[in-house]
Amino acid sequence: MSGPILALDFGGTKHSILYATDGRTGANVIKRVPAPPNATAAADCEAVFGMAHKMLGLSNPAAIGVSFGGPVDYNTGTVRLSHHVPGWENMPLQAMLEDEFHAPARVDNDANVAALGEYRFGAGQGCANLMYITISTGVGGGWILNGDIWRGQDGMAGEIGHTVVDPAGPVCLCGKRGCVERLASGPYLAGHARALLDANADPAAGALLRELAGGDLAAVDARLVAQAAAEGDALAQGVLAESAHALGVGIGNAANLVNPGRFVLGGGVTKSGEAWWHAVRAAARATALPEVLFDIVPAGLGDDAPLWGAVALAPAKTS
Amino acid sequence: MSGPILALDFGGTKHSILYATDGRTGANVIKRVPAPPNATAAADCEAVFGMAHKMLGLSNPAAIGVSFGGPVDYNTGTVRLSHHVPGWENMPLQAMLEDEFHAPARVDNDANVAALGEYRFGAGQGCANLMYITISTGVGGGWILNGDIWRGQDGMAGEIGHTVVDPAGPVCLCGKRGCVERLASGPYLAGHARALLDANADPAAGALLRELAGGDLAAVDARLVAQAAAEGDALAQGVLAESAHALGVGIGNAANLVNPGRFVLGGGVTKSGEAWWHAVRAAARATALPEVLFDIVPAGLGDDAPLWGAVALAPAKTS
Repeated sequence: MSGPILALDFGGTKHSILYATDGRTGANVIKRVPAPPNATAAADCEAVFGMAHKMLGLSNPAAIGVSFGGPVDYNTGTVRLSHHVPGWENMPLQAMLEDEFHAPARVDNDANVAALGEYRFGAGQGCANLMYITISTGVGGGWILNGDIWRGQDGMAGEIGHTVVDPAGPVCLCGKRGCVERLASGPYLAGHARALLDANADPAAGALLRELAGGDLAAVDARLVAQAAAEGDALAQGVLAESAHALGVGIGNAANLVNPGRFVLGGGVTKSGEAWWHAVRAAARATALPEVLFDIVPAGLGDDAPLWGAVALAPAKTS
Repeated sequence: MSGPILALDFGGTKHSILYATDGRTGANVIKRVPAPPNATAAADCEAVFGMAHKMLGLSNPAAIGVSFGGPVDYNTGTVRLSHHVPGWENMPLQAMLEDEFHAPARVDNDANVAALGEYRFGAGQGCANLMYITISTGVGGGWILNGDIWRGQDGMAGEIGHTVVDPAGPVCLCGKRGCVERLASGPYLAGHARALLDANADPAAGALLRELAGGDLAAVDARLVAQAAAEGDALAQGVLAESAHALGVGIGNAANLVNPGRFVLGGGVTKSGEAWWHAVRAAARATALPEVLFDIVPAGLGDDAPLWGAVALAPAKTS
């Protein structure tokens, strides 16, 4: 038996709250709470808990599931830190929620929870072995193996963004060269385009991208690169193809190692158009052995994958 | 209840048969049957089945486990093909054994079974999430996750040898550039040393390796490269370090993706000395994120890892 579920997504720019009174898949109301740049953990908790109480009224949820934008110790439900907001270090979020709402809670990081959401309700339905990858400001991933989140020995599994695909590549924030994240994430692919425009080796290439940016290189972002590429700009097409290729090699390597049946891709950069998807798929296929089969599909739940994953993460009643 | 187990290892140069009357871990007799270069599947089966009957006498085993040197469909116990011997294509080895010895059998490929052997009886004991990697003529791998073999969606998991670590590297048999196998396997590292000696760019470097090979480049193999490196030959040291580095990057990538607690390394190339181990560990550590923890240890069961793994693979009595 499942009862009403309280699902929370602590994100980078906003937090989302879903009170799933209508079972786990029904049409339910989602409320958003902004996550201002100067937020603190305490303020975020107050805003999210307050909104949840408003939605619950006098009821209690049967269970609580939480997606958190940063590393979490799943076994204890303790946040290690937030990627976005100070003050979250070692916060016992699971215990806080259980005290506040008198229901069992589970907390995990957003990539794992989004993977679960896509598996249960999105583009991963029916495929019990999959990797979810978000390609956005960074590149993160989460595994579903045998229908469950695979967290690894210490909860660190899924870090495809920091696998090396080109040891001669540019230096990543992590210190290594040629990580998937350093080559395929939105800010880095935009930076690559800006650097090429700035070098101006071939003024004809990039003219359209430059125009779309109103001549202001600082305005070049991943979305503009994708738009220019779609409209025929050769420089933008090259940048996009190169970054998609790096991601595809990382996916092919992951396929050879773990042999999941599907890769589900979400995040802003996946909106870069068909050429991007084609390049990702071609590189992954060329990297994986011929016998290693998989498909690569767009996420089905968009930005709400973690929120719906949180619904699935909430512990089932055992009584 | 476990009874006496018949364990078989169909290998490249020999087959091994173990009748484990003394439980799963006791001291038991192992018989070897040569696998001549001109063998056929039928001849191999006759020799192995015959030896097993001799060892069994009038008894039947309680169960049978098999390690096979090539891809196997574990679910049906059917061999897809042998890497060494013609005629194995689509051979229903599990059914043949069950008919012949009147006991339930399980068959899997040697990397998976060796991983299980090391986990249950060797260097992986106590670590329920590990990757076993053999670095020999090729580079293969097998996963233990949550204490069981992880085979992936189609039984293809573990192919670390064909993950790409250097897209500018030399071309592998699989067609890609810079696979771990192409950089780290015994024949390839020996070939690299031969090519450098042949180019003779720096005659002083490599003098010792050349001497150890009696001036015959064709005699240079991975063992000689390791010996020359240990005795101070700079060319051999460089070749060994480079190949160990490639393997280490592959291991670091696998650690970031799957987060196992341990990597167990077996196969001839792992006998290349402390410098090789140091280079593997250093590259893996530099490639994995700081929070991704693991150790890298030598296999404990040597060439018998698949045979002992076959003991563990044999189905437990359910009656």
